[in-house]
Amino acid sequence: MKLINYGMKNISMSDALSPDQLEERLYQIGAERYHNLHPFHKLLHKGALNKGQVQAWALNRYCYQAAIPRKDSALMSRVEDRELRREWIHRVTDHDGMEDDPGGIQRWLILTRALGLDDDYVTSYAGALPATRFAVEAYVRFVREQDLLSAVASSLTELFAPKIHRERISGMIENYDFIDKDIMIYGIRRLKQAPRDAKFALRYVREHARRPDQQKAVFDALIFKTNVLWAQLDALHHAYLEPRQIPPGAFVPDDPSE
Amino acid sequence: MKLINYGMKNISMSDALSPDQLEERLYQIGAERYHNLHPFHKLLHKGALNKGQVQAWALNRYCYQAAIPRKDSALMSRVEDRELRREWIHRVTDHDGMEDDPGGIQRWLILTRALGLDDDYVTSYAGALPATRFAVEAYVRFVREQDLLSAVASSLTELFAPKIHRERISGMIENYDFIDKDIMIYGIRRLKQAPRDAKFALRYVREHARRPDQQKAVFDALIFKTNVLWAQLDALHHAYLEPRQIPPGAFVPDDPSE
Repeated sequence: MKLINYGMKNISMSDALSPDQLEERLYQIGAERYHNLHPFHKLLHKGALNKGQVQAWALNRYCYQAAIPRKDSALMSRVEDRELRREWIHRVTDHDGMEDDPGGIQRWLILTRALGLDDDYVTSYAGALPATRFAVEAYVRFVREQDLLSAVASSLTELFAPKIHRERISGMIENYDFIDKDIMIYGIRRLKQAPRDAKFALRYVREHARRPDQQKAVFDALIFKTNVLWAQLDALHHAYLEPRQIPPGAFVPDDPSE
Repeated sequence: MKLINYGMKNISMSDALSPDQLEERLYQIGAERYHNLHPFHKLLHKGALNKGQVQAWALNRYCYQAAIPRKDSALMSRVEDRELRREWIHRVTDHDGMEDDPGGIQRWLILTRALGLDDDYVTSYAGALPATRFAVEAYVRFVREQDLLSAVASSLTELFAPKIHRERISGMIENYDFIDKDIMIYGIRRLKQAPRDAKFALRYVREHARRPDQQKAVFDALIFKTNVLWAQLDALHHAYLEPRQIPPGAFVPDDPSE
């Protein structure tokens, strides 16, 4: 695939990709940069981590889950189109729940609880790595401050999410005796929710990113988002795996060699 | 009621009002500043306006209704507390609708449509007064940028809304031959929704505004919001009633003397 030279001062519409080419490039970014490629995830899924390391992962990942409704509300707060808001609000209710549904954040706490972590400790973020929180808040700010097309495009990692959820669910249930199917309920629910969301966002960018500058914004947004996810695993890897340097104040597993 | 001297440099906790005193002062602000006191509203309700003036009111008021979900999403985007978000989201769905419910914005269009205004014209804001849009966007920005307590407190005009909806519904149905009950469905639904919302927000500020500086922020937020509503009627009054100076580009009724 021919890449556009975005350094050019004057980009003409003839440099624009077709919607199919745009989509192909988005999948290429995923294939190169999605965090399923990160060494920490590979170790997590294949059962190579100890319980303390899985705790650290679940505890830090909670920060991300808990921020999603703020991120999606920020997007909605900028949308003039009522139909788009009515579509997008499902992302908020999927995570926060609504009426009888406790929502995805509560489902994530089923995992951290089963791992022996106290709810108050997890939800306080007290033991989370600062790098996790910086990355998560960078995502919320991005969606709040960048153009709407970029904000929508930053959600496109959902395109690659079902694969990682499937790997994670089967791998973790199989490889850890402290993990079972009931505990992994968050990921199981996301297998249904993520494809719906991703399909909508993909259709949106195919429709709205027609000019080369808009298409570049979409690629940049997706790359930014893959960085948000990757940086969280880098921080976990550094703190809990190698060189295992836990920053002051961050979660310290009971027994790292357990 | 003794008013606190907020000019004082050092305010001690002893200057704080009790929750009941706080609430009393909020109702006092409503009694002095809510837009049911505005001459334009009095004329609207008692049937003293012509159809063109009612069209102008409904058309401009649409801008406000349509902005409410952005305003409430902006608030949610700042809330860490999942329970508060789960409560607040009803304000978004009340206006945007959800699933089968078309929501309050669509119900407002029933009114503008019945008044003979084209949906596309209304929803484009093309004929709205600039002052209306400035006031409405000031409200969205306020909620996005001020502290959370102020953002919540700015919704407290809902405390006074049922009264104005009742006056408006009965007055307009009685006094205009082009208005009937089906058309006023927006206001009829708000009679149920507003008290629920107001009760929650009132409980929130009673609980969270304990220090004098917090209580001042709450009063300022409510006064700001009454100004947002009042300024919209001032602009309508000026453009369509007296001195009847319609700004360039704004809606011009077919026959002002109709």
